[in-house]
Amino acid sequence: MNQIFSYKTFYILLLLYPSFLFSQTIRPYDSVAKKIITTGLHSRNAYKILEELTTSIGPRLSGSVGAEKAIEWGKSKMKSFGFDNVRTESLMVPHWVRGNKEEASVIVNGKSTSLSICALGGSIATPNEGITADVLEVHSFEELQSKKDQANGKIIFFNRPLDDTKFSTFEAYSGAVNQRGSGAVEAAKVGGIAVIVRSMTTRLDNVPHTGAMNYIDTVAKIPAAAISTLDANVLSEFLLNEKNVKVKLVLSCEILPDVPSANVVGEIRGSEFPNEVVVIGGHLDSWDKGRGAHDDGAGVAHTLEALYLLKELGFQPKRTIRAVLFMNEENGLHGGKAYATVSRPSEKHIAAIETDAGGFSPTGFGVSTDSIRFEKIAQWAYLLEGINADRIRKGGGGADISELGKQGVPTIGLRVDQQRYFDYHHSNSDTIDKVNERELELGAIALSILSFVLAEEGI
Amino acid sequence: MNQIFSYKTFYILLLLYPSFLFSQTIRPYDSVAKKIITTGLHSRNAYKILEELTTSIGPRLSGSVGAEKAIEWGKSKMKSFGFDNVRTESLMVPHWVRGNKEEASVIVNGKSTSLSICALGGSIATPNEGITADVLEVHSFEELQSKKDQANGKIIFFNRPLDDTKFSTFEAYSGAVNQRGSGAVEAAKVGGIAVIVRSMTTRLDNVPHTGAMNYIDTVAKIPAAAISTLDANVLSEFLLNEKNVKVKLVLSCEILPDVPSANVVGEIRGSEFPNEVVVIGGHLDSWDKGRGAHDDGAGVAHTLEALYLLKELGFQPKRTIRAVLFMNEENGLHGGKAYATVSRPSEKHIAAIETDAGGFSPTGFGVSTDSIRFEKIAQWAYLLEGINADRIRKGGGGADISELGKQGVPTIGLRVDQQRYFDYHHSNSDTIDKVNERELELGAIALSILSFVLAEEGI
Repeated sequence: MNQIFSYKTFYILLLLYPSFLFSQTIRPYDSVAKKIITTGLHSRNAYKILEELTTSIGPRLSGSVGAEKAIEWGKSKMKSFGFDNVRTESLMVPHWVRGNKEEASVIVNGKSTSLSICALGGSIATPNEGITADVLEVHSFEELQSKKDQANGKIIFFNRPLDDTKFSTFEAYSGAVNQRGSGAVEAAKVGGIAVIVRSMTTRLDNVPHTGAMNYIDTVAKIPAAAISTLDANVLSEFLLNEKNVKVKLVLSCEILPDVPSANVVGEIRGSEFPNEVVVIGGHLDSWDKGRGAHDDGAGVAHTLEALYLLKELGFQPKRTIRAVLFMNEENGLHGGKAYATVSRPSEKHIAAIETDAGGFSPTGFGVSTDSIRFEKIAQWAYLLEGINADRIRKGGGGADISELGKQGVPTIGLRVDQQRYFDYHHSNSDTIDKVNERELELGAIALSILSFVLAEEGI
Repeated sequence: MNQIFSYKTFYILLLLYPSFLFSQTIRPYDSVAKKIITTGLHSRNAYKILEELTTSIGPRLSGSVGAEKAIEWGKSKMKSFGFDNVRTESLMVPHWVRGNKEEASVIVNGKSTSLSICALGGSIATPNEGITADVLEVHSFEELQSKKDQANGKIIFFNRPLDDTKFSTFEAYSGAVNQRGSGAVEAAKVGGIAVIVRSMTTRLDNVPHTGAMNYIDTVAKIPAAAISTLDANVLSEFLLNEKNVKVKLVLSCEILPDVPSANVVGEIRGSEFPNEVVVIGGHLDSWDKGRGAHDDGAGVAHTLEALYLLKELGFQPKRTIRAVLFMNEENGLHGGKAYATVSRPSEKHIAAIETDAGGFSPTGFGVSTDSIRFEKIAQWAYLLEGINADRIRKGGGGADISELGKQGVPTIGLRVDQQRYFDYHHSNSDTIDKVNERELELGAIALSILSFVLAEEGI
């Protein structure tokens, strides 16, 4: 689009984006919301926060040096923003390391073609010389069961793609991710000696996506890797068209003893009911691939900036708003569990809001609570109309606040445009160049507005 | 976010994106909409169309070889998709060419620093040796008037940024673009000999953004260029801190005689009322910078794919849906005017829908018509709920269909997430790598659903 003629200017102003031309009744907190919106969009401070986290610290897998640095950074950031009661809350986390070797190749008639793979988080290593074996391709645990006679001694290749007909990429992800989480257990049960899982993305490219997988004590542990979607197709073609297809897989990852770590906590104390608390948070840890920019650097930036906007504007609510940067969401959830377990006898959590869906344009919030409290929360949707983030819907939360939810605390999840999220998720592609400054800031703004009004008015 | 534990899977399914768990009443056209959504998201055909247009043809400024190729391509694409009555409708277009030289530098105490600039579309050239002159920086026409005593013989530097506090980037753009459109006229009135205009983007980078500017017959024509936002800041700093700052500007652009061109038209004929027509369209021309991927390759892809989805699924509506690829939106609007001027005595346009805001996630439609017809259109919003594109609001249209609007035809504009649009607009950055396949397809899907139901039910 373009415009040089005055009538074209007129069209754009009057027809395309006319909201500002229609007078509106002034409603409670309209001016608060407007100040938060204009201040945030102008400062784009969330992006500066994210840039620090992803550039000067980088990846932050639980137990890593990066995670330790991120804790120190988070604390000092909160202090520099003038938050109250800035502290860490200790906990233990798993310590898995990728090691320096992960490679795979498909071998057909003696000719080797390398495959783009990475270890899944939590996997054991292969022997030093790797595992070389025949491959059984399946698309579901049911198919694996039906072919269990062919599975023994083989590498099991789980190749069910995300269902790209779904609008919700999270729903598509949920429909495929059991291959990653439980593939190794199911494969080992039928005699498989390693697993390769198609990456959890709707995108067709050559980047493997890691993510957590788990073992159970009663089943043999076998190594597990993700393969890029393009190379999953390549491997599948080989299996279809060639005989004597073998795959060689080498992983050097290691499970080390648990280590101490921490959540980072800071707040704006409420002026009238400081012991009533609205928690807002994202997770500070990330996978070791990429920089965890969308997952969940964006949530960290949202959380810090949401509270900082209130500080900056002098909006002290009646109740406390507490920012929590949770550790270890990715491979254990020990941070979320620890936060919910700490005894806080004088306190009452009135709501918990998580942001862990990336730094894209916010669309609204999902809320899990009873109908009465849902309506009390949903009444504030109009404050988010100005940024198209007013879809407050039933059902929402986040992994880190799920333990609080079990204790009866209303849980709320920030919802954002989700089309691009799994393009980057858990991979080397999850870097800050995939984040738009304004889209990221809008998430912080939405979080700031909702947390303020809930802390001011209660639920 | 992550998930390996069943309760986390449960959370994502139940809490974050639960719509599919709640049973819904089946409403008219629900199944039509669902088929269009799933077919489109799986095929992502809009992206394939856009890839052809931007890769094998490239930029398509009116009068250029690219534009001519695009017309042939559009026609053959429509034929290959099985559209009815595929044809071109002739018209004349302006023919402006950039030439092979455009450069600028700031000279301070004999030291020259190059500036990232490009000619504005429609500008005359400088003399071969360029223009070297002192610079007057202003931020508005009012400021220019107040400093008119200092303007004579100078290059006027318009440096008012887009107002980044606005959520609507279109509104921010509209608030700054008079500098680009009328800056040369206003500058020449007070004796300016050339203009340099800050690029129309909220982004701070080193890419200049072109766009149309105009002259009027009664005022001297002077050359006009856009400067990148970063170099606008650099130039402004020099002017603030140094004495004897001059800028040298060299442009070799040229205004050639008008040439013949065409709109490309094809349709699905209505089964019952073929002479009642819903127009859908975007513009086929682009600027000569970048590849016109978002502006408006996306609209072209939306339009072709919207109609193709209906063809593919066998949905023939009662009324005709006509796809129009308009020529010359960017610098003359001759395509939109020509389409509206052609005599079609037996036909009645019942609505016109334009897509010219980029290939981002659709949010809904803006509609300009009377209240009764608005309600008839808005009743179908529920069909777009499943893709979060159900914001049907008053006020909408597009430049190409504005002439139809003047004739009383209801005009409708596809609205999309607009935060990134002006990052790329009219610049070398507007290339297909900035377009997400799924986001692009969703725009086509929204257009397909709305045009089908309007053509089937009337307004």
